[in-house]
Amino acid sequence: MPFENRIYNFAPGPATLPEEVLQTASKDILLWQGIGAGVMEISHRSSAFMNCYQEALQNLIDLMKIPPNYKVLFLQGGGIGQNAAIPMNLMGLAKAGPQADFVVSGVWTQKSIAEAAKYGQVRVAATSKEEHFYCVPKRDSWDLSPDSAYVHICENETVGGVEFSSTPDVGGVPLVADISSNILSREIDVSRYGVLFAGAQKNIGPAGVTIVIVRDDLIGHALPITPTIWDWKIQAANDSMINTPATFAIYMAGEVFKWLKKEGGVAQMEKMSAQKSQLLYSVLDQSSLYEPRVHKDSRSRMNVTFYLRDESLFDRFLKESSEAGMIGLKGHKSVGGMRASLYNAMPLAGVECLAQFMREFERRA
Amino acid sequence: MPFENRIYNFAPGPATLPEEVLQTASKDILLWQGIGAGVMEISHRSSAFMNCYQEALQNLIDLMKIPPNYKVLFLQGGGIGQNAAIPMNLMGLAKAGPQADFVVSGVWTQKSIAEAAKYGQVRVAATSKEEHFYCVPKRDSWDLSPDSAYVHICENETVGGVEFSSTPDVGGVPLVADISSNILSREIDVSRYGVLFAGAQKNIGPAGVTIVIVRDDLIGHALPITPTIWDWKIQAANDSMINTPATFAIYMAGEVFKWLKKEGGVAQMEKMSAQKSQLLYSVLDQSSLYEPRVHKDSRSRMNVTFYLRDESLFDRFLKESSEAGMIGLKGHKSVGGMRASLYNAMPLAGVECLAQFMREFERRA
Repeated sequence: MPFENRIYNFAPGPATLPEEVLQTASKDILLWQGIGAGVMEISHRSSAFMNCYQEALQNLIDLMKIPPNYKVLFLQGGGIGQNAAIPMNLMGLAKAGPQADFVVSGVWTQKSIAEAAKYGQVRVAATSKEEHFYCVPKRDSWDLSPDSAYVHICENETVGGVEFSSTPDVGGVPLVADISSNILSREIDVSRYGVLFAGAQKNIGPAGVTIVIVRDDLIGHALPITPTIWDWKIQAANDSMINTPATFAIYMAGEVFKWLKKEGGVAQMEKMSAQKSQLLYSVLDQSSLYEPRVHKDSRSRMNVTFYLRDESLFDRFLKESSEAGMIGLKGHKSVGGMRASLYNAMPLAGVECLAQFMREFERRA
Repeated sequence: MPFENRIYNFAPGPATLPEEVLQTASKDILLWQGIGAGVMEISHRSSAFMNCYQEALQNLIDLMKIPPNYKVLFLQGGGIGQNAAIPMNLMGLAKAGPQADFVVSGVWTQKSIAEAAKYGQVRVAATSKEEHFYCVPKRDSWDLSPDSAYVHICENETVGGVEFSSTPDVGGVPLVADISSNILSREIDVSRYGVLFAGAQKNIGPAGVTIVIVRDDLIGHALPITPTIWDWKIQAANDSMINTPATFAIYMAGEVFKWLKKEGGVAQMEKMSAQKSQLLYSVLDQSSLYEPRVHKDSRSRMNVTFYLRDESLFDRFLKESSEAGMIGLKGHKSVGGMRASLYNAMPLAGVECLAQFMREFERRA
């Protein structure tokens, strides 16, 4: 049960966090580890913070089974920052001039390709635009170029609610994946990726820290215009502290990693993500009011999107769900409809509460 | 008096924060404004957060008396990020090709000039390197070029403990000032600057948000390679939310701004900064053990640096000051010695405690 007066928050990010992590943080921002100051007030070079950082790093490596030939960076600027940093760091790898491939599956990959175009040639290897981004482009439709430095995909499109069901095979070209909204929700084989990146504010912690996991051979090719804080080689050699890191956000991420381990790790999160999302999709599939538009094989386990066939009920749905103790259900303004975000910190009880509300709302409507 | 078990934290950043702000945050991260969720968990687009952001913005405008022809941005990437973003946004203004002037007064301006060199020609208009950066270069030694897009200064060098005593006159060229470590500690005439910028983790709040104050006519000249999250025009048109902002860090900054207003605003902080720093400098000037090296006219009110003439006492000073309830006094590794950072949130009682300890330590030593 949530603590008193706490509601179920289905916001897409910044998003709900584990209650016990918040309880711990509530104390630690006043006094932390017996050092007489709060966790936000401590130098990033202090042994207390360096231990906190190393523990967070190791726990993430353990949780994701990150191989030793990868570096893990805690940077700033979010996913949109890395949309620039990735081409800056990788375009130099392309044999025949700077070029990269993009698999366009929604709002996020559209942003990524627009940003990368500042730093080299961008190729649309595949797109599901014709399908209104209600699916991931089928793998056999992808037109990959051997001359590209990398292939960029977004494993989970937060706005559309579209998710890759597995890691695609892209041959020898480095696979770059935006996993901002599904990191730590499914077991993946990190060795199949060149670069993984994620803003923290969905499955990890507060907005303000960005995790980048990069294979060693992809480090050291930054364009001369790359800002120091995004030069992966420099940051990897400096514990991500060439600038003052977002210490509190890293502390919070570390607390979430500890919580994830205690809860059973990524395997358990994968199991719960399937259970939680299936609960809602089953309501949608049995409904004549709710309309799920995403193709079944591309349905996101993290962001369940749907429309009301009777649009006049839109405001009433939001109002009544809010009165029933659930917020954050309004879809992104660019696509409309509803969206329930089911990140790791959303308890099953919250999803059961929403499923029940949705069934009753349909009955009443 | 600090709350129980709280020590005096003289760290240079992340740094001590006002106790009552921490107490408020400790509650708000669990439940905020009656919305049933904590402040870190709420969408940046929610009315609750937008109100928080607007209030923080307006309070900063009030505190600094920022004229209406300036935009205030809350970005990510810290001061070192802006070391890249500033030339990216301004170099295009130079009449005869990208060029900027730098007044080099220590570690921070050395970093700024190295970063800017990626985006255009950099000129050392003046430097105090010959003086070991123990002073700000005298204004009459500056060789400014009318062809430069801007002149960059660092108003307070955190590492060296060197501070401009007033805003220099640079004629018609836009003055860009790094005020990371003395923002809100002195009344300044914002209209004399083109750009002011500051990482938050010294005088404002937790690391992870960077404040940029920029005159309207300097917006809209970004180089094509400028990352979207640092394009001031785009961020100014989007309430600094073209990417998910560091919401919690902005909330914290807003709470500190409210606290500053209640405490008497910038005028009162200026008065207290003078009083606190004079207290320590007077100990240094009367001592035969402590050696202040910064020239009197360039002494920082924020970071008081000094050496021990008997270097063998270094570790003992740190150990005994820590036992007496004071931490964060070790100088930056690149310069050694001691440093006491006296940001706005450091109470006078903390400085009195340190002054007394230093006198007694010298007597005993």
